[in-house]
Amino acid sequence: MTNNLPGFHLKKTYPAAKARAGELVTSHGTVSTPLFCPVATQGTIKTLTPREVRDLALPMILVNTYHLYLRPGIDVVEKLGGLHKFMAWDGVILTDSGGYQVFSLARLRRVRDEGVVFRSHIDGSEHLITPELAVQFQESLGADIIMVLDVCSAYDSSFEKVEQDTHRTHHWAERSRKAQQSGDQALYGIVQGGVFPGLRRQSAEYLASLNFPGYAIGGLCLGETKEVTLAMVEESVTFLPENKPRYLMGVGSPEDIVESVARGIDLFDSALPTRLARNGSLFTPSGRINIRNAGFGRMERPVDPDCGCYTCRTFSAAYLHHLFSAKELLAYRLASIHNLAFISQLMQRIRSAILDDTFDSFKDEFLSTYRPTDEQVRLEQKQKWLKQRA
Amino acid sequence: MTNNLPGFHLKKTYPAAKARAGELVTSHGTVSTPLFCPVATQGTIKTLTPREVRDLALPMILVNTYHLYLRPGIDVVEKLGGLHKFMAWDGVILTDSGGYQVFSLARLRRVRDEGVVFRSHIDGSEHLITPELAVQFQESLGADIIMVLDVCSAYDSSFEKVEQDTHRTHHWAERSRKAQQSGDQALYGIVQGGVFPGLRRQSAEYLASLNFPGYAIGGLCLGETKEVTLAMVEESVTFLPENKPRYLMGVGSPEDIVESVARGIDLFDSALPTRLARNGSLFTPSGRINIRNAGFGRMERPVDPDCGCYTCRTFSAAYLHHLFSAKELLAYRLASIHNLAFISQLMQRIRSAILDDTFDSFKDEFLSTYRPTDEQVRLEQKQKWLKQRA
Repeated sequence: MTNNLPGFHLKKTYPAAKARAGELVTSHGTVSTPLFCPVATQGTIKTLTPREVRDLALPMILVNTYHLYLRPGIDVVEKLGGLHKFMAWDGVILTDSGGYQVFSLARLRRVRDEGVVFRSHIDGSEHLITPELAVQFQESLGADIIMVLDVCSAYDSSFEKVEQDTHRTHHWAERSRKAQQSGDQALYGIVQGGVFPGLRRQSAEYLASLNFPGYAIGGLCLGETKEVTLAMVEESVTFLPENKPRYLMGVGSPEDIVESVARGIDLFDSALPTRLARNGSLFTPSGRINIRNAGFGRMERPVDPDCGCYTCRTFSAAYLHHLFSAKELLAYRLASIHNLAFISQLMQRIRSAILDDTFDSFKDEFLSTYRPTDEQVRLEQKQKWLKQRA
Repeated sequence: MTNNLPGFHLKKTYPAAKARAGELVTSHGTVSTPLFCPVATQGTIKTLTPREVRDLALPMILVNTYHLYLRPGIDVVEKLGGLHKFMAWDGVILTDSGGYQVFSLARLRRVRDEGVVFRSHIDGSEHLITPELAVQFQESLGADIIMVLDVCSAYDSSFEKVEQDTHRTHHWAERSRKAQQSGDQALYGIVQGGVFPGLRRQSAEYLASLNFPGYAIGGLCLGETKEVTLAMVEESVTFLPENKPRYLMGVGSPEDIVESVARGIDLFDSALPTRLARNGSLFTPSGRINIRNAGFGRMERPVDPDCGCYTCRTFSAAYLHHLFSAKELLAYRLASIHNLAFISQLMQRIRSAILDDTFDSFKDEFLSTYRPTDEQVRLEQKQKWLKQRA
C-alpha cells in the first residue's frame, strides 16, 4: 500500500546533500522543514493548550502511542473521533509506534519474532505489541505520520546484540509496511544499528529499499558521546534517499538540532525543552540558565530581553523565580512557553539561513555564543535511560 | 486620612436595602458589583495567566499579603514596581491584611495589644505583625483596596473570647485608619463578632462610626452552619451604611453567593472555585460533578454544553477525565477556567436580574436547580480550618 499524499518537497540543500529546507505535505496541512515537534506524551503538551502551541508556530506534534494505548485506550480515542478531535489539535500529528517506550518505560519485556510482551508501567498488566498492532493502533488514532515498531538496543549493547536487534527491526519494518490499511498515513521506517557504522549503513540501505515515504533515525542520544551521535547520524543519512524526509528521534537540545540539521536532518522531536522548563532550566542565546538560582530573585528584566514570547514580553525573571520558589503551577507553564518559543525561533532562523545560503556562518555563530551543555544533557539522558531500564 | 476616590455608586437595590447592583471606582478602573474576586494567594491565580483571568471577565483579584510578605518579601515586590507590575495584572487588586492567614496558617501565635507574633508556615521564622505594619505592607504592594488587621476567632470560641477578639479588632481598625499614609488605597474595616448577633451588631456599628470607604465581613464560613452564616451576614449588613460596599470574605460557592447577594453583599473572594477545580470538582447548572468519576471516561459532550468557556467550547468531558487520570497539569488549568467562568457568568446573571427587577425569581430558580452541596463545602472548610489550627 503506497501513500497517496504528495509527501516531501526539497526547496534547498546547503551545501548540497547537507542542511536542507523543505516542505512536508500531510493530511493536516503543509509544514516547513527543518521542523521541531514538541511532545504530547499523554495527549497534551504538558501545561499548554493546543492554541498556545499553535501560537508558538509549532504546527506538528508527537504523541506517544504506548501511553494512549494504556490510558485512556486506543478504542476510547477512536470512539471520541480520533486523536485530533480528542485533544483539539488541528495541526499535524506524528505518533511513534511504542517501540522506544516498551524498551524503556515498560517492565518485563520478552522480545520474540512475533513482537514484544511487556508489563504496563502504570498497573503492571501484561500486553503484547506486534508490528501489525502498532500500525493498527496508529491508524485508529488517525495520526498523519506513523512509525514502524522497532527494537531499541541499549547504548552499551554488544555488536552481536545490536546486529540481532537491527535485523529484527528490518523484518518488523517489512511487516509494518504490509499491515498498513489506510492511505491517509505516511508510515516511516526507523534506522537502527546502535553505535556501529556498518550496521547503520546496512539499516539505512535496507529500509531505503522498502521505499518508505520518510525515514526516522532511532536509538541515539541514549548515553553515547556527542561525537558518536553525530557520526551515526551522518552514517545513516548518507545512505538514505535525498528526496525523503529524515527524522532524528528524541533530539531537542539547541546545539544538537543545529549540528544535526548540518548533517541533513529535517524533523526532530523531544520532550527535553518542556522537561527542562519544568525544572527551571531555560534556554537563552548564551546557553541554559536555571531560574531557581537566587541571583534571579530581584532581576527586573525578563529571562531573555530579545525573546518575543509571552513569558519574556510580560514577566520579569524575578517573578518567574518567585513562581518556581512557591511551586506555583504557572511557573511550569511560563517556562514551557519560553523554551518552546526559543526552539521555534531557532528553527525559523535555521530555515532562513539555509534559504539565504548563510547556514554555515549561522551555525558557527550560534555554536560560538550558545554555551554548550551537551555533556550535561547527555548525562541526564543516560541517567534517565538507566533508571528506566532498572 | 480620607480616600480621594469617588468610591461606590449604587445603581439599584432590589428589593430596597437587599440585593444591590453598583459600581466600584478604583485606581485601576471601575468594576460592576456584585462581583467575585478570584484568589491569587502567592501572586498568581493558580495555573492561569493574567490575560486568561481578564478574558473570564473577572476584573478584580485578591492577593494575600501574608504570603507575599514571607515570599518573595514586600520589599522585593516594591522594588520590582509594585504588585500590579510584578504579576502583570492591570486590573483591580484587593489585598487582605494577613490577619486570617496569621490565625490559620501560621504557627505559635501570641496575640498582644501591639499585634501578633507568629511563626512562618514555610520556615518557622518568627515575625511580628501590627495594624500599622499591615497597612504599610499593603501600601507598599500598591493594592487598590486594602484591609485592616483583624483578630479572627475560631468558630467554636466562647462569647467572652469572641467579645475580647472583636474589641481588639475595633481598636486595631482605628490604628489602621490612622496609619494610612497614601490616599490611593481604599482601606476597609472588617466586621467580626463570631456567631453572636449582638457582637456582630456592635462591630458593624462601631466600624461604621469610623467611616471607612468599605466594609468587609470576616470570621464566617469557618465551620458554623449555613443558617448561622447567613444570619450573621444579615445581622452585620443591617448596621452598615447603605452607600458603602460590603465585602463577604472567603465566600465562593455558587449557592452561598446567591444567598449573600440577597442579603446585600457586593463583593466576594474565595479560593474555593479554583481549589475545587484542581480536585476535579466542577460547577454545572445542576450542581457539582467530579470529573474523575469513571462515568466521564467516554463522554463526548463537554462538562457543561451550555457553558461558553474555552474548556467547554473545546474539549469533551472524556478528555478532561483523561487529563485528570494522567495527572496532567493541563487538567488543573482547564478545570480552573471552567469553574471561574461559571462563577463569572453567575455574577453577570445576578447583576442583570437585580437591574431587571427579577432577582427573586432568578434566585429561586437557581437554588431549585443547583443541587445544594453546602454541607459538603462546610465540612471541607471546617476540616481545613481545624487542620490549620492543629
